[in-house]
Amino acid sequence: MADPWLGKDRSYIWHPYTQMKDCRTMPPILIEKAQGLKLYASDGSFYYDTIASWWCNVHGHNHPVIKKAIKKQLDSLEQVLFAGFTHKPAIQLAEKLVRITPKNLTKIFFSDNGSTAVEVALKMSFQYWRNTGAAKKRLFVGLDRGYHGDTIGAMSVSGIGLFNEAFAPLFFPTLKVPSPYCYRCPMGKDRSSCRLDCVRPLETLLRERGKEIAALIIEPLVMAAGGMIIYPPEYLAKVRELTGKFNVHCIVDEVATGFGRTGTMFACEQADIQPDFMCLSKGITSGYLPLGVTLTTKRVFEAFYADYNLKKTFYHGHTYTANPLACAAANACLDIFQEQATLKAVKPLITMLRAGIEDMRSLDYVGDVRSAGMIGAIELVKDKRKKTPFSFKERIGLAVYKNGLKKNLLLRPLGNIVYFFLPLGVTRDELALILERSREVLCETLA
Amino acid sequence: MADPWLGKDRSYIWHPYTQMKDCRTMPPILIEKAQGLKLYASDGSFYYDTIASWWCNVHGHNHPVIKKAIKKQLDSLEQVLFAGFTHKPAIQLAEKLVRITPKNLTKIFFSDNGSTAVEVALKMSFQYWRNTGAAKKRLFVGLDRGYHGDTIGAMSVSGIGLFNEAFAPLFFPTLKVPSPYCYRCPMGKDRSSCRLDCVRPLETLLRERGKEIAALIIEPLVMAAGGMIIYPPEYLAKVRELTGKFNVHCIVDEVATGFGRTGTMFACEQADIQPDFMCLSKGITSGYLPLGVTLTTKRVFEAFYADYNLKKTFYHGHTYTANPLACAAANACLDIFQEQATLKAVKPLITMLRAGIEDMRSLDYVGDVRSAGMIGAIELVKDKRKKTPFSFKERIGLAVYKNGLKKNLLLRPLGNIVYFFLPLGVTRDELALILERSREVLCETLA
Repeated sequence: MADPWLGKDRSYIWHPYTQMKDCRTMPPILIEKAQGLKLYASDGSFYYDTIASWWCNVHGHNHPVIKKAIKKQLDSLEQVLFAGFTHKPAIQLAEKLVRITPKNLTKIFFSDNGSTAVEVALKMSFQYWRNTGAAKKRLFVGLDRGYHGDTIGAMSVSGIGLFNEAFAPLFFPTLKVPSPYCYRCPMGKDRSSCRLDCVRPLETLLRERGKEIAALIIEPLVMAAGGMIIYPPEYLAKVRELTGKFNVHCIVDEVATGFGRTGTMFACEQADIQPDFMCLSKGITSGYLPLGVTLTTKRVFEAFYADYNLKKTFYHGHTYTANPLACAAANACLDIFQEQATLKAVKPLITMLRAGIEDMRSLDYVGDVRSAGMIGAIELVKDKRKKTPFSFKERIGLAVYKNGLKKNLLLRPLGNIVYFFLPLGVTRDELALILERSREVLCETLA
Repeated sequence: MADPWLGKDRSYIWHPYTQMKDCRTMPPILIEKAQGLKLYASDGSFYYDTIASWWCNVHGHNHPVIKKAIKKQLDSLEQVLFAGFTHKPAIQLAEKLVRITPKNLTKIFFSDNGSTAVEVALKMSFQYWRNTGAAKKRLFVGLDRGYHGDTIGAMSVSGIGLFNEAFAPLFFPTLKVPSPYCYRCPMGKDRSSCRLDCVRPLETLLRERGKEIAALIIEPLVMAAGGMIIYPPEYLAKVRELTGKFNVHCIVDEVATGFGRTGTMFACEQADIQPDFMCLSKGITSGYLPLGVTLTTKRVFEAFYADYNLKKTFYHGHTYTANPLACAAANACLDIFQEQATLKAVKPLITMLRAGIEDMRSLDYVGDVRSAGMIGAIELVKDKRKKTPFSFKERIGLAVYKNGLKKNLLLRPLGNIVYFFLPLGVTRDELALILERSREVLCETLA
């Protein structure tokens, strides 16, 4: 291996979600700098970051406003423990988040990433029922293709699949319901004529076992890691209606969908719902620093608000809870949304992305295309008529990835699902180029 | 409430580990800047950060070298996904960590905080046995006063107590052994004459059930959140010997003890052991940014290194895995250790701290004093002879906390344990002042 940096990488580093044996033939790419949508490698090559570096970059890399905000914060306060102490960057961010999220969400709990934001919601819901004398409500419901993170609690409420099946004996028991995967409808229906039949198993479950259930957790509109499954807002509205009816908390995991990715600031706006908990991370700092947030209601908060001796306190915290540098990045990220009217500016790009991937529907091996905001997905199949998936062993996604790199594209398919998860800061010209080259990649890979 | 910032804090923020009702009478302190050991509040007051902002600050606040490193990194690369891609700050940090940790630890897995560093170790150990055909080894052993974090997996292997008892129904089953708590010896012995009898229950357990056990997890030398229990290196050495003998992984959780806090770079050096996994966080960035690291051995790594189709891959990752800004802070933190010979410079301060708290042993209500490096603890009791603890409801720690603030000290006792967890950057004069005033606080509180 020529590059000494890569030699050291190979000696010391175990990369996430990576079969390290693959690195023998395909070493990681050494990135030295980034600007806007472009990642620049040490060998002079560059790549368009079409998946926003695992769905977190919002306004583009090396953004002057965010950089400036972090540098300024570095000159006053980098960190202080967040129990007994507070600071302006966290207070500003809390106020901003309360203003832009559903109006029932008024209380903010900080943590470090999406997994912890989810664990906080699960734990708060669980303890809420205990604190209010309903300790029998201790089960959670998830969707069978849901993904909520990699810690044990977050994995427990996710669907069982390749990512987590090895650890299943460590999970607490959860109840799973079918996912609203329209292309492969669990009820054998068609979206044009169905009446959201796929929500019925959930309704039955809540009716029969609601008294044992603490909360349901769901990714609103886009089930991201499960295969960029995009479902109608009506399903989400129905889920919120049913959980309310049967006295079960509704946790929306907006870790991937939050901060404009689906065209609205938060995906759950499109169903006009008020969840009991909302989990945020990824885009909150525009891809600069790890930060997690769990929002909840006054009602939940008040179930913990009591005399100390009653032991109703929520005992959870991470050292870097509300890290001032991360909060400063998040405040800058939200300021950019406002000052540059990002959500308005991105509208024509959303139309362009939808048209661009719709245009790929007719290609060989393309079974489905779907999009929501700046997320677009193309599901590859072996047989279009039968919707036969490529097998795990064929690694069709890997072939797309490799061919993408040759054309300066960072495409990182989830199995057979090729997708875009674009920074909102993408330009019209960049998007045109990405769509054109992606089409070429698909044609060449599947020819 | 006069200060509008605190009014907003009260409206929107749910603080970690905090009974929010207490904030009515004791609102959080608004910190605006920090320098060295001092935290400066908006009202002009300041506080000595004697607990290193939850045990993370190492070289003092607002450190020019770390600030500069983060600012420099901000100008090139703030973040890139760490699968398929890599970057120099992570590679440099990995190389440095491999050099300074026990020599069998050569592989680095990054995550975001201490809880995730622990979850990674648990998951790797669990899957190691599965990958090597010993899937029956799926239980974990922890100490009955251990603390390893707040996510479900991390809580499962911690001792059951105030912090996590509400969530026990969600934990996976673990085996617990008595802690080497010399002041309250579980075997009723005395350290001067015991022969590490407290390790016997572990030996019996490993002998009887070793074939079902994947790993043991332990905080080396200092069981921090469990009450700053400081135990002899010989115990740790014995634990490593026994786990080796019975083919069980040994995970050392150095999240609190790492980076010089106990006088050596890592606490496990003092027992001269080679663990199978080491978990790091907190001080790794000198208190600047969230970062977690799990180190392991070539042997563990190789059990996952296989053809992709064999499904032996470790599927775990967080969006901000190896965040370049956090890695840059960590590299700077380690550079300071080297350039300023921090571990040597701190030696006289360690002696001074030990003498200072030893001097408090004779005070009324002081049952025990103990120290390791820059960690010192004073255990308060109602009756010195009988070692009767103050009850939970007396909140003696809260009284110490309040009186500490009046003397510019941030002391945040763990129940009845008053402790120091000092940044290594503390000066001699500061330490003298902190010890003197702490003594006054104890005398006044307990008079």
